[in-house]
Amino acid sequence: MDEMNFDMLNELLAAGKFGTLKSELNELNEVDIAEFFGSLEPKQQLLVFRILSKDMSAEVFAYLEPDDQINIVNLITDRELSELVDELFLDDTVDFLEEVPANVVTRVLKAADKETRQLINRFLSYPENSAGSIMTIEMVQLHDYLTVEEAIENIRRTGIDKETIYTCYCIDKARHLVGTIDLSELIFNDGNTLLSDIMEEDASLISVNTHDDQEYVADIVTKYDLLSVPVTDKENRLVGIVTIDDVIDVIEEEVTEDFEKMAAMTPSDDEYLKTGVFKLAKNRIVWLLILMISGTFTGKIIEGYETLLAGFVALTASMPMLMGTGGNAGSQASTLIIRGLAVGEIEIKDYFKIVMKELRVAAVCGVVLGAANILRMYLFSEGTIEVFLVVSLAMFIAIVVAKLIGCSLPIFAKIVKLDPALMAGPMIATLVDIVTLVIYFALAKVFLL
Amino acid sequence: MDEMNFDMLNELLAAGKFGTLKSELNELNEVDIAEFFGSLEPKQQLLVFRILSKDMSAEVFAYLEPDDQINIVNLITDRELSELVDELFLDDTVDFLEEVPANVVTRVLKAADKETRQLINRFLSYPENSAGSIMTIEMVQLHDYLTVEEAIENIRRTGIDKETIYTCYCIDKARHLVGTIDLSELIFNDGNTLLSDIMEEDASLISVNTHDDQEYVADIVTKYDLLSVPVTDKENRLVGIVTIDDVIDVIEEEVTEDFEKMAAMTPSDDEYLKTGVFKLAKNRIVWLLILMISGTFTGKIIEGYETLLAGFVALTASMPMLMGTGGNAGSQASTLIIRGLAVGEIEIKDYFKIVMKELRVAAVCGVVLGAANILRMYLFSEGTIEVFLVVSLAMFIAIVVAKLIGCSLPIFAKIVKLDPALMAGPMIATLVDIVTLVIYFALAKVFLL
Repeated sequence: MDEMNFDMLNELLAAGKFGTLKSELNELNEVDIAEFFGSLEPKQQLLVFRILSKDMSAEVFAYLEPDDQINIVNLITDRELSELVDELFLDDTVDFLEEVPANVVTRVLKAADKETRQLINRFLSYPENSAGSIMTIEMVQLHDYLTVEEAIENIRRTGIDKETIYTCYCIDKARHLVGTIDLSELIFNDGNTLLSDIMEEDASLISVNTHDDQEYVADIVTKYDLLSVPVTDKENRLVGIVTIDDVIDVIEEEVTEDFEKMAAMTPSDDEYLKTGVFKLAKNRIVWLLILMISGTFTGKIIEGYETLLAGFVALTASMPMLMGTGGNAGSQASTLIIRGLAVGEIEIKDYFKIVMKELRVAAVCGVVLGAANILRMYLFSEGTIEVFLVVSLAMFIAIVVAKLIGCSLPIFAKIVKLDPALMAGPMIATLVDIVTLVIYFALAKVFLL
Repeated sequence: MDEMNFDMLNELLAAGKFGTLKSELNELNEVDIAEFFGSLEPKQQLLVFRILSKDMSAEVFAYLEPDDQINIVNLITDRELSELVDELFLDDTVDFLEEVPANVVTRVLKAADKETRQLINRFLSYPENSAGSIMTIEMVQLHDYLTVEEAIENIRRTGIDKETIYTCYCIDKARHLVGTIDLSELIFNDGNTLLSDIMEEDASLISVNTHDDQEYVADIVTKYDLLSVPVTDKENRLVGIVTIDDVIDVIEEEVTEDFEKMAAMTPSDDEYLKTGVFKLAKNRIVWLLILMISGTFTGKIIEGYETLLAGFVALTASMPMLMGTGGNAGSQASTLIIRGLAVGEIEIKDYFKIVMKELRVAAVCGVVLGAANILRMYLFSEGTIEVFLVVSLAMFIAIVVAKLIGCSLPIFAKIVKLDPALMAGPMIATLVDIVTLVIYFALAKVFLL
């Protein structure tokens, strides 16, 4: 798909050729139609929304930006709203309601029938980022005593409103989840086979609980290459499923959160362009303040060496470069470890192996950078060779210390059940700054005074 | 699924109870069996591999770690190897071959039949990270003149070896891709309906080209919530599909690459624990060197203010804190922009809006941090109130400049078609260091001399 070209659609809309517009829209994917909506004025959106068939309009609605969704809901009649809620998958309704003002929520709840209203309320009460809050209830449930033929007949009759029919869920009479079965199994097996004979059960039945964290759900779906995973309540009754498209959203969200934490920000679910200035500032100030105040330590250390620094300007001049290099070396190590922990390639038990590896990597980097630094200072810097040596030696040690701190802190965070992503660049650099200065001045005292 | 407990399996293996072991293994998911393999000695692995049924052993093989795969391939007979290659999906074979030494590749190619060998060679020749290199050829292809009933019959007969049957691909007589159709459409439509009447075609037919980058493939699959996407050659002939499980792997890989670039490393596909010390060091040294050498600028600036610094120790003492804060403020902005660009929430055309937003966020952060800094220095630092004011004012300006550089560079990188992830923390901090020092000393000269 290349960039969509909406000019033709816009012309049809402007010319009032709604019949042609309707058939052109029918040719498009609902994702592209939603993109087209984004380029329209509110009133035009209503017009196009009404041109679409009921099921199509609900599908498009699910892909709209929250602002456009609110606009549509505000403009349509109660009856249209009630039809929309009826057509939408429950998880899409809930996603939408989580983003909109309270008055819109009230109006949508009023428009829903009683059963849907109860369901929506139950969904909204699940803990944020739990399996319950992202699941859908539109799944194919089959009793395990059915035959393959009966099952296919059942899917043909009832499946059309389900979010996926490709994995079916087998339940016993008390609605306990007892197995899963892929539609392909149904297609390839004889019609008289019993579901209970071919379903995945016991150790190979994979499910999650309503209160499990969404990150865990994503891990399970990814690990087992599933298209959807069943969600059960405390009594092991089947209450919903989480589908792969929602899992991909979760992965994206969790990665964004890690990026934010690693850059010393309070993570936020909101889109950058839609977040207010004060909210953005608030998310950033906390860590900036903490890291700034810890700068008191580096300040105190430097104050203690006033005379030394006054005697050798190259020592002062090298401070930013030295601390920058230490910070970068530390970030490199911590980033690899944080990411390794996140994707499961690294575990706590690997710590000793990691430290040994980082020490050796640090030695190689330290020697190369130390040598390059002597050359650099010789070419560009004031001062004696002794000073250059002190700077290079301090750099070598700074790199070793930085790699050590960088690879250790994320693992320690994991051990004490903190998020390793907090132990990234900014935090590591602040600590490395302090250690580096202490070593730097100690070396300078020994070799230069 | 809780952590798997392999004790029972190990006991059965040790006791030589292979019959019971086989039936216990049959209860497990192939992903868990692959995990069990990881805990075994090479010879035990061979034993368990041979206990499994042929199709099960191929599925488990696809989930094994490369080292374990190599071990198995080295231990099995040519005949077993040829059966294994026959059972494996082509994309799994290719994935495996990309990870192993040349002698193993040669042996596998010899064991494959002629047709498979040609296919493997073609796959291995696709550019790295292209759609062609990650696609599979085991897809359901249907001629568009078939009826729904004929199509289902065709899938029943031929579909069992396909990686997915849930999306079927319609081709014309010259094998051109002309449409896609979901299995659910086949299930819910009347048997006499023609595929050409219900398939997705024209504007709503979504496909990629063999040479498209895997990141683009992942974007398309994610955007349109697909379970698989068809891959065509230059003549629009259908040559393969990419399935969602491989797309998730691509997403994970690309995110890891971004993390590595953002921490000033050359990205690498290799797992941390399996990468050698020199490879790791090489990936890190390039950027460390570049950033260190650019430290020459900060050094030169500082040398120029020798007398000023000698007169006010608090100026020197505040340097690390000031530059740390600038660097952190810049990283925060660049991280949000890089991530926003990566997930498509931010586009180049938003640049002006972003700059205005960042300036206001910077003003808020700058005022709060500047005020906090005066208090901090008053409590803990030597020096006069004038010095404290100069440091705070410099900090305010540093934060504004840092946010401006931090939000601009990723967008400029995007404009000149560089990866925005390169313009992250370390690079931003290095630039911010230079600008901050210039401003800092200029302010100090004006207010203190």
